Formats: sequence, structure tokens, C-alpha cells
Amino acid sequence: MHTQEMIAAHPHVQGNVNEALLRCIDLCHDCAQACTACADACLGEKGVSELIQCIRLNLDCADLCNASAGIGSRRTGSNQEVMKRVLEACAEACRVCAEECGKHATRHNHCRICADACRACEDACTRAIGTIKVAMH
Amino acid sequence: MHTQEMIAAHPHVQGNVNEALLRCIDLCHDCAQACTACADACLGEKGVSELIQCIRLNLDCADLCNASAGIGSRRTGSNQEVMKRVLEACAEACRVCAEECGKHATRHNHCRICADACRACEDACTRAIGTIKVAMH
Amino acid sequence: MHTQEMIAAHPHVQGNVNEALLRCIDLCHDCAQACTACADACLGEKGVSELIQCIRLNLDCADLCNASAGIGSRRTGSNQEVMKRVLEACAEACRVCAEECGKHATRHNHCRICADACRACEDACTRAIGTIKVAMH
Amino acid sequence: MHTQEMIAAHPHVQGNVNEALLRCIDLCHDCAQACTACADACLGEKGVSELIQCIRLNLDCADLCNASAGIGSRRTGSNQEVMKRVLEACAEACRVCAEECGKHATRHNHCRICADACRACEDACTRAIGTIKVAMH
Repeated sequence: MHTQEMIAAHPHVQGNVNEALLRCIDLCHDCAQACTACADACLGEKGVSELIQCIRLNLDCADLCNASAGIGSRRTGSNQEVMKRVLEACAEACRVCAEECGKHATRHNHCRICADACRACEDACTRAIGTIKVAMH
Repeated sequence: MHTQEMIAAHPHVQGNVNEALLRCIDLCHDCAQACTACADACLGEKGVSELIQCIRLNLDCADLCNASAGIGSRRTGSNQEVMKRVLEACAEACRVCAEECGKHATRHNHCRICADACRACEDACTRAIGTIKVAMH
Repeated sequence: MHTQEMIAAHPHVQGNVNEALLRCIDLCHDCAQACTACADACLGEKGVSELIQCIRLNLDCADLCNASAGIGSRRTGSNQEVMKRVLEACAEACRVCAEECGKHATRHNHCRICADACRACEDACTRAIGTIKVAMH
Repeated sequence: MHTQEMIAAHPHVQGNVNEALLRCIDLCHDCAQACTACADACLGEKGVSELIQCIRLNLDCADLCNASAGIGSRRTGSNQEVMKRVLEACAEACRVCAEECGKHATRHNHCRICADACRACEDACTRAIGTIKVAMH
């Protein structure tokens, strides 16, 4: 990923990057891919009927990770409250998806790996949220 | 939009649709389109340099509306807390985007129309949130 | 949808809208919703194992409809060749999804409705493609 | 990115991964991020009015990279013709975006880095397309 270089090159950032937010963007991309692939791998399993809640949570999590990666990548102007809320929603989506994937981790490697990606992304979102200063309004 | 028909045909819904959530899905699609088009129209204006915060908020709002429309369209299994949080983030994105677009509404028709779409979507999100029951955890 | 109003208000369009492309944007939003909801409804069916190809095609089609709606909504500058190609990919995604959904239409209403939405979107994409002039390169 | 591990864990893949398509997924994520960030960095430049075509192409390219990453990540069932076409559209979006970003590369580091990300993604899409066997129809 060129995330670090790209954000550092922003005219308003000028090298003064928010490392926690950078890491969050990268892990949102990773988690979006993992959840998309896990939903599809679950769909390909013989026991798909036991994995439908897992697929549902995977798809929701991928949607939020994609939105968070986009919003987290913008530095022109300001939209702190929205960035905070989308990352909070994303952290929760990751948390519940990791929990569900964890239930199938011993039987399905894709669920085990996806649970790891979700937990890492949840953690990165939580750390990034801690760096966002929201103005009073 | 076939939203009403599609959700009513879901095996777990069986015609017992949540009207507020249906309306929210449709208005999220409408608002995503309006915000994408408003960002692009602002970019085409001679006075683009005065519209950069507007473009930023438009793009963030479109990302959240698209995620909300996807997540709001799922009825298999359950993901209530995540649905609630993404709609809250979406309502806030719509609120701040409508506020900013409103500042340019007398000069730019696209900002005026987009502000209307954002306010309608914010309202639909808020009403939909009111119908979501979140289990204790 | 505010699509007509939004595009007509673009500074470079000035009311001279491409009706076929407008219709295509709206039907892409409709088809994205239908495909997202059909994938989820299929997932909720007892006979989900017979619907896995349908879910796969639904998810791919939704991804392309969302991308097409975004790209089709931009009028600043020019990107005709890309717009043509994404609509061609989208038309093909709709065609194969309609064909697969059609196989399950008598048993599942969501597949019947989704097939209709896909066919309408395929047709709208094809008509829109016919209006795009691509410069030599 | 967990892409390699995730795809290898798919029940139909069983370790027999398509390396070119794996690489394409990762570079689509990288390019989506770079294009989103470049559009936003251009928007923050004083000379934004000279960068509006660049922003337009960046946003279109990000939309196609996101769609391609999603579609490229699925292995259940089959949708080869659609996968081929979306990667072709994506390669073209990357090509024209790299060309435009290249014009601003000496003045803006974000355009230089983004052009690199686009060229790498175009190359990865082209190589992946070469591995897709499309059935007659």
C-alpha cells in the first residue's frame, strides 16, 4: 500500500501524518478483502446453511470497511464527527464479525484468518478514533 | 426502485416490512447519487476553490449512504447494533453535508437540490434508527 | 431520485441532459439494491445450497451497478472510454444475473423481481452505451 | 493484506491459487486508496482548477478498483466473462488516470505516487486478464 506516502504528500498534511489513522486505512482495506473472501468461501462450503449469519456479518463488515477506508483517506477541509462515527460503526462491525467467525475457526481456515483480520481492524479503528478531535457543535 | 417488493419477498420478512427502513434505503440511494453528482458539479464550477469543503462532505456522505443502503437491505440473521450505528453515522454525514450545501444554495442549484436530498435522507435515517431494537450485550 | 435535476444543474450540462444515461444511473441504483437484497434473501432460503451461483452473480452485479452509478454521474472533464467499458461490464453482469435468477423465478419471488430489475438495467446500460462518443486514441 | 491466505483457504481453491489474480486484488486496493487520496490532495491544492480532470479520473478509477477488488475476490461458482470485463475497464481507468496524474507529477508528489500506483495496477489487471479462461456462450 502507498497509503503513508500518499497522505504525507497531501498539501495540508505536509508530512505530519496521523500514524494511527494511516494504519486504520490499511487494515480497513485488508479487512474488506478478508470479509468479502470469507463470505464467498462460506458460500462455497457444503455446510453453508450453518454459516449464513457469518456471511451476513462479513458482507456488512466489508461495506463499512470500504466506507471507512474512503472517508479515512480524506484530509481536505474537515469532517471529524463523521469520521469518528463511521470508525465506531466499523469497529463494532469488525467486533461482531470476529466473534461469529471465531465460532467457525476450528473448522474453516478462512473464518480463522478473517477473525484475525477483523480483530486487527477493530483495534486499529479504536486507536484511530482516539486521535480524532471533535469540535463542539 | 423495487426495494419494497424485494424486501417483502425475503423468506424471513414475509411481507411484514419495516416501512421506515425501506424508505431509508431508497433515500440513501437518492442521496448517494445527489452527493456524487454535487461533488462533480462543484468541481466543474469556476469558483471551485470556494467549494472544496462542500466536495469533501459530499464524497464522505456518498460513501456512507452507499454503505447504509447495502447494510439496510439485509434481513438474513441479525446485525442490529451495526445497522443502528451506520445509520447514525449516515444521518450525521447528511446533516453536515446539507448544512454546507445550504451555504451555496442560492448560487448553485446543484447545492440546493443536494441539500434537500441530504435533509430527506437524514430524516429517513433518524426514523429508521427509531425502529431498530438493539439487544443487550 | 433527484438524478434528472442534479445532472441538469451541472455547470457543463446546463439542462442539455443525456436521458439514456440518466435512466441508466437510476436503474443501476435500483439493480444494485435488488441484487444486494436478492443475495441476502437467497441466503435466508432453506434451499440456499441450490442458490450459491445466484448469490455469487448477485454480489458481482451489485458491485458493478454501484461503480457504474458513480462513474455515470460525473460530467466534469471527460472519461468516455472508461464510462463505456464499465457500462459494458455492467450490462454483461446484469445479463448473466438475470439469466441465473430467471431459473429460480417460479420458486422465489425475490429472484423473479431481481431478474426483472437486472434486465431493465441491462437494457438501460446498452442504450446509454449507444450515446457515448469515444474519441480516437 | 491477508489476500493470499484467504483465497488459498477457499473450499474450491484448496491452495491452488491464481497468483496473478491475487496480486491484482492487492493492487486494486492500493490503487483505490491512492486515487481516493490523490483526488482529495488535488482538492487541497491552491491550483485546484488545473487539477479537475485529474480529480475526475481519480474518482472513476477508485470506483472501478473497488468493484474489481470485490469481484476478483470471489471463487464460488463462476463469472469469468464479467470478471474479465471489469478488469479490462479497470485497466483502462488506471491507464488514463496514470497518464493524467503523470502530467502533474513534477509539481505534485501525490500525483507522481498515484501515477505509479495506477501503472502497477494496470499491469496487474492486464496480467490477471490473461489468466481468465472465458467459456464460449
